[in-house]
Amino acid sequence: MISSKSNAKIKNVKKLLSSSKERRLQGLFAIEGVRLVKEAPIELVRQLFISESLAKNGEFDSACYKNVEVVSDEVFRSLSDTVTPQGVLALVEQPAWSINISSFEKGCKLLLLDGIQDPGNLGTILRTSEAAGVDQVVMSEDCVDIFNPKVIRSTMGSIFRIPFVIDDLVAVIEMLKAEGIKVYGAALEGSLDFRKVEFEKRSAIVIGNEGNGISEKVLNAVNKKIRIPMKGQIESLNAAVSTAVLLYHIFEN
Amino acid sequence: MISSKSNAKIKNVKKLLSSSKERRLQGLFAIEGVRLVKEAPIELVRQLFISESLAKNGEFDSACYKNVEVVSDEVFRSLSDTVTPQGVLALVEQPAWSINISSFEKGCKLLLLDGIQDPGNLGTILRTSEAAGVDQVVMSEDCVDIFNPKVIRSTMGSIFRIPFVIDDLVAVIEMLKAEGIKVYGAALEGSLDFRKVEFEKRSAIVIGNEGNGISEKVLNAVNKKIRIPMKGQIESLNAAVSTAVLLYHIFEN
Repeated sequence: MISSKSNAKIKNVKKLLSSSKERRLQGLFAIEGVRLVKEAPIELVRQLFISESLAKNGEFDSACYKNVEVVSDEVFRSLSDTVTPQGVLALVEQPAWSINISSFEKGCKLLLLDGIQDPGNLGTILRTSEAAGVDQVVMSEDCVDIFNPKVIRSTMGSIFRIPFVIDDLVAVIEMLKAEGIKVYGAALEGSLDFRKVEFEKRSAIVIGNEGNGISEKVLNAVNKKIRIPMKGQIESLNAAVSTAVLLYHIFEN
Repeated sequence: MISSKSNAKIKNVKKLLSSSKERRLQGLFAIEGVRLVKEAPIELVRQLFISESLAKNGEFDSACYKNVEVVSDEVFRSLSDTVTPQGVLALVEQPAWSINISSFEKGCKLLLLDGIQDPGNLGTILRTSEAAGVDQVVMSEDCVDIFNPKVIRSTMGSIFRIPFVIDDLVAVIEMLKAEGIKVYGAALEGSLDFRKVEFEKRSAIVIGNEGNGISEKVLNAVNKKIRIPMKGQIESLNAAVSTAVLLYHIFEN
């Protein structure tokens, strides 16, 4: 049993929880809680940490995991950012998806994210994307790290189910357009009311940064700029809210 | 100039920032930041606190406010929960709205919230409601306090523009139904796909608690239970996301 906070494995978990650079270097990320750990594909789980009291009461079945470490309750609490930790944490390999254009011949629902910065927004967007039937999410390199613990928590498990890639959006948009997929950018000004647009069966939507919207070079690459009309004195909607309204409208069937 | 953190006025601001009971007792709430203070109707502002450096550089015009207190930068920082406070904070009277059925004869867009607990969700819901043209928001008594600083920040100023009341939802629903207004409850199970429902011109939507949905007694009172279809393994959507999808669909015109 690990009972020291300065144990090398414990120190490494802390690094993976706090540093996106470390996550990238190791190709791993950390997830916490019974439900999330159970949602992780078992072949991706590299190591499981279980608290002493959870191991004793047997409420979590860890028999199917290869690398299990029991950790004293005190050390486990030092890893957790919840007040009453459930006592299970896993190090998981980062899923590796790619953009598979050939699967998009008949129809596709793509979501492109340009510089989303708020972890809660990114997680909620992934959760909503799965619910709305999005086939794939493409994120620009300056989005908040998808393996940030706050993002993961907000995805409610979608991180293991919705295919995502991180790539240069302009290049991806050019590739999609060359394949005949229509790309719509959500922009505040000079654009079409989304409810008056006839969306194609093979479509991609671009959502921009919370404060600044879609960057100029990406906006220049899209086929059409669409807008969510707003009443009152509202200048913009929350990014996750805008995404949900558009996804549920455009990908209706 | 106030230069002590134990000044009675400073202590009172801290109470109003942290305690919903205190806000209710005094009928006041605190708002921070140049933009939010400028959005507050001037007749509701009871007292303005401005930091020494903001008062000196003259970048905020406080001439139109009655009760202005200059506060040392150090004391101001102790009031603010932002890292770089803008130097202006106001105590504002709680707006008093009422439900005005007679104004709803031709058409109305009402939103009823049953036990929303997350401050960010409640604020985002108010912001989205203004954008979607909601006429009035009714909150159950067990919603998170709308004057909580986190709620206010997430509303982006809508708190001063969208009429809201706190009331018993069952009683309000009975009143609305007696006036011929249709009440739709968003529920996960046993309900109609919202995209297949013909919504009436005078409608109210009920959104429930993040974890438990609409309470049983409220759900029993609605006319129809509607559902947002979800693909994948998603069990529910974020409450602000559900609200946005429904508002933008139902209140389309």
